[in-house]
Amino acid sequence: MNKVIITAAITGAVHIPSMSEYLPITPEQIINEAVAANKAGAAVVHLHARDPKTGQPTGSPELMKEIVDGIRSKCDVVIGVTTGGAIGMTSEERLAAIPAVKAELASCNAGSVNFCFSPIADKIKNPKFDWEIPFVKNTYTVPFANTFQGIEDYIRIMGEHGTKPEFEVYEVGMLSNIAYFVKKGLLKGPVYIQFVLGVMGGLPATVDNLLFLYNTAKKLLGDNFVWSCAGAGKDEFDITTAAIILGGNTRVGLEDNLYISRGVLAKSNAELVSKIKDIATTLDRKIATPDEAREILFSK
Amino acid sequence: MNKVIITAAITGAVHIPSMSEYLPITPEQIINEAVAANKAGAAVVHLHARDPKTGQPTGSPELMKEIVDGIRSKCDVVIGVTTGGAIGMTSEERLAAIPAVKAELASCNAGSVNFCFSPIADKIKNPKFDWEIPFVKNTYTVPFANTFQGIEDYIRIMGEHGTKPEFEVYEVGMLSNIAYFVKKGLLKGPVYIQFVLGVMGGLPATVDNLLFLYNTAKKLLGDNFVWSCAGAGKDEFDITTAAIILGGNTRVGLEDNLYISRGVLAKSNAELVSKIKDIATTLDRKIATPDEAREILFSK
Amino acid sequence: MNKVIITAAITGAVHIPSMSEYLPITPEQIINEAVAANKAGAAVVHLHARDPKTGQPTGSPELMKEIVDGIRSKCDVVIGVTTGGAIGMTSEERLAAIPAVKAELASCNAGSVNFCFSPIADKIKNPKFDWEIPFVKNTYTVPFANTFQGIEDYIRIMGEHGTKPEFEVYEVGMLSNIAYFVKKGLLKGPVYIQFVLGVMGGLPATVDNLLFLYNTAKKLLGDNFVWSCAGAGKDEFDITTAAIILGGNTRVGLEDNLYISRGVLAKSNAELVSKIKDIATTLDRKIATPDEAREILFSK
Amino acid sequence: MNKVIITAAITGAVHIPSMSEYLPITPEQIINEAVAANKAGAAVVHLHARDPKTGQPTGSPELMKEIVDGIRSKCDVVIGVTTGGAIGMTSEERLAAIPAVKAELASCNAGSVNFCFSPIADKIKNPKFDWEIPFVKNTYTVPFANTFQGIEDYIRIMGEHGTKPEFEVYEVGMLSNIAYFVKKGLLKGPVYIQFVLGVMGGLPATVDNLLFLYNTAKKLLGDNFVWSCAGAGKDEFDITTAAIILGGNTRVGLEDNLYISRGVLAKSNAELVSKIKDIATTLDRKIATPDEAREILFSK
Repeated sequence: MNKVIITAAITGAVHIPSMSEYLPITPEQIINEAVAANKAGAAVVHLHARDPKTGQPTGSPELMKEIVDGIRSKCDVVIGVTTGGAIGMTSEERLAAIPAVKAELASCNAGSVNFCFSPIADKIKNPKFDWEIPFVKNTYTVPFANTFQGIEDYIRIMGEHGTKPEFEVYEVGMLSNIAYFVKKGLLKGPVYIQFVLGVMGGLPATVDNLLFLYNTAKKLLGDNFVWSCAGAGKDEFDITTAAIILGGNTRVGLEDNLYISRGVLAKSNAELVSKIKDIATTLDRKIATPDEAREILFSK
Repeated sequence: MNKVIITAAITGAVHIPSMSEYLPITPEQIINEAVAANKAGAAVVHLHARDPKTGQPTGSPELMKEIVDGIRSKCDVVIGVTTGGAIGMTSEERLAAIPAVKAELASCNAGSVNFCFSPIADKIKNPKFDWEIPFVKNTYTVPFANTFQGIEDYIRIMGEHGTKPEFEVYEVGMLSNIAYFVKKGLLKGPVYIQFVLGVMGGLPATVDNLLFLYNTAKKLLGDNFVWSCAGAGKDEFDITTAAIILGGNTRVGLEDNLYISRGVLAKSNAELVSKIKDIATTLDRKIATPDEAREILFSK
Repeated sequence: MNKVIITAAITGAVHIPSMSEYLPITPEQIINEAVAANKAGAAVVHLHARDPKTGQPTGSPELMKEIVDGIRSKCDVVIGVTTGGAIGMTSEERLAAIPAVKAELASCNAGSVNFCFSPIADKIKNPKFDWEIPFVKNTYTVPFANTFQGIEDYIRIMGEHGTKPEFEVYEVGMLSNIAYFVKKGLLKGPVYIQFVLGVMGGLPATVDNLLFLYNTAKKLLGDNFVWSCAGAGKDEFDITTAAIILGGNTRVGLEDNLYISRGVLAKSNAELVSKIKDIATTLDRKIATPDEAREILFSK
Repeated sequence: MNKVIITAAITGAVHIPSMSEYLPITPEQIINEAVAANKAGAAVVHLHARDPKTGQPTGSPELMKEIVDGIRSKCDVVIGVTTGGAIGMTSEERLAAIPAVKAELASCNAGSVNFCFSPIADKIKNPKFDWEIPFVKNTYTVPFANTFQGIEDYIRIMGEHGTKPEFEVYEVGMLSNIAYFVKKGLLKGPVYIQFVLGVMGGLPATVDNLLFLYNTAKKLLGDNFVWSCAGAGKDEFDITTAAIILGGNTRVGLEDNLYISRGVLAKSNAELVSKIKDIATTLDRKIATPDEAREILFSK
């Protein structure tokens, strides 16, 4: 039985500071959260940068470099960086961190989809920052565009910098997009897929959907893929537990879900990591160390 | 057992004139094809307009009006018009036909997705028109954007003109988008869904995918929907036959598929309609007349 | 694309003479039906014997030999014989035909299940024969027993006589039974599976069920199987058409279904074979000859 | 969100004393195990009796009455008794406990299937009792027969004694058997179904199978059923956790699985109950008390 890789998605570009005081914002906070998440059991951290003053998501390669350097100086966790950025960013902004930090992993969104979290606006009475409400509302009116040309460019640029794409899959057909690039010869070794469920506009976080994604991936890619699952919102632990039972890896973190249990804010990424680690070990799984994760992700 | 509604998708905005001499281009050709398709068994026609000189897809409301008026003067078929237009058109262009022709049905694409047919470029050696190759290649680099705001606008504008939305569904998560608008109270009566399979960027035309879409729709919408299925490309008859077996309706036509059998160009939409009608009647189904289709689509 | 093998199940042990005057009873009738079915497109015939006077199913090896010899003298169709016999027969009765006729194929029921057709009794007002009503009613009270030991014996005895087992699968778990015998090393070459849907007590003839069987078989057996599908009752053509679309082979015949269309009795097995052949060719499939069927079934 | 009913299956008729010293045998042991399991979180106990001297499963109504009376005198847990008995028992033996103890629940196996555990024989070097090896080997050669007539009789007799049937479902088609009796009007209120996965001869304990059972039950029975899931063998906690995620209830216990984790024998039913209770509460579910279980099972 394979070991389970836990990825911690530290802060993301969806949640806004008004939703939780525990959402890390500054490079220092993000570094500390990542290091603690690693200590708690995460073999991989998935990173976004935010403006240290306002908490607004940013594609700044300088901030990302500061974060990555800080983490690397303190622990051996596998580093994955976003290229999804925030809704509305250009490709250049989204890709700028790749050459800057030469991360082991970077997200590569596997197709276009609506990625909407505008309903957050209804829950925030007194936003801390002016940018927050327009930022979340904007996702009702803008698509999350990841065209074939875009994906091809991302794969190529990541390849040039020794970064392996982590394909973020929000929909079933996106697996065929990945299969297209495999067939075209642009991808080597096992494909790494992150099923991201529960985003409004994409697939809801149900076991039906996760199982169908998994079975479809098997049909299209055979054994030539490694997979993990993330769940946005309240179903995070249900769907990631289901992923573990199905033999997959799992991502948790404040990017995906701010609550440790119904109505109770998580105080840290480490708390979320500990919870899924407990579930996994109760279910007789072993947790991968960063080096074991590297072997699973990069060695084939 | 319900009667089967056959929709004929007459010309679309995907195939280019260089692919088949039988693709209707001018209003007169489109009118004649629609009338013949109706005579062959189609209760509904799904219409796009093309520039009469070059065959390039256009959102021109004047051309669409000429087409619709022509068809209405000759037969009683249910009229459905596109709002998908061609990749790259603005919302205004895509919606212009609605007030102009007050069709009974109009397509309403249920989410954003890559809708790519650039591989056509590799098959065309001597294009008839200069626009053709850049047009198809462009779909590799542009998303087919249908945001939540866009869908909401389409629903509203169609409602104002007595046009019922036909939701084009290319992906599983798009069914949740529809459920969102049902819950929001913007949709009345049975939702009409067209599963469009086989588009590069969306779901391939497999029975697995069709069945999963159908089962998901049942879970989200209960009995409150009517559905049909279209298949792009060579699997058109396999997947539409599967849809009939599953109790659904079916769309065929030169928009979706240019071949009547492997390697043999269809000479008309009517020929494609006749073929699926034959299959349906062999499988003991009855074919809906336009009035029976109206009862199924609009009466609940 | 593989050619489609059509099997004609000539008379079976379920339907009773009072249900249709066209059900073949005597060896001569069964021979003539088999030969005509082959001429109509069947590459394989699946055979049961009946008492020539009363039409009651019998495991008599002499009658089976008379039938098989008669067919072999007139055409080259692949011969498959039953070992299911009728509900209530002993193993010895069920296996007696194997050494007698050394058929190329014989049915091997892949597990225990209720195989009930007692509701037939309610439809027959004036039975032609005294045995008919008690015979069908009995299936409400007797299981169709095919234990692990039984299956192992059948496989062994068939192997000794050069007969390949055709596994009749009525339930999902039966595929695991087959996988057990594969793992045990008792089965060589591609496993041949007949999915039999629509029997009361087993899986109903739905596309959901057929697809789940197919996907489960793929997971358990990889590419090491060839499959066909039979549908008992009114859904015969729906489910066998679905099987063709899924890439499978198909069985029709008066054993499974007495009607050529709703309410209209089939006058012969050949008529049923012709109908599925028409559907298959309309869907661009080629029909396997007996020799092509032999290559598909026995050559790997 | 519904509360989760935990059922403890105390000793069963599958495992043999040589497999674990912790398997309860005598009425006193079974009573103590049931009471402790209830204290640990089980709202329901599922009971079999064994010969106090040899541990061999028995349908003795006197022993069952002693067990049930003992439990009732010590706690308020919901009592469910077996009618599956052991492979090879007659119907009379299997049903004898119903009038004797008037339990709230009794198992009603929903169809015939092979129920085989003969591989246990290979693992036992020095059996404690002479009956053990022949007993388990016998399951390779005998079907577990539960015919339509048998099920109908069980339903009727349970109804006469105020006992609600708990349908043990090992296969997909068995759900159609249940639907048949619902349609026939023999079952009132919500049907209670126990999906029993992992038995050799039935469905393996995979999420695919559990989800397909659940979706099939929804299609056949609508909302008119309550369900639970048991997993035989090493996958007990994986599959029952999946059931909880899918919204179902769950059964654990030494009848189904002797191990608390890989290679470590469970010392009691209570230990297994505690483990699934921990998982359920970690996943934010509440555990039903016996009275809450009664409301869920009997009140509709």
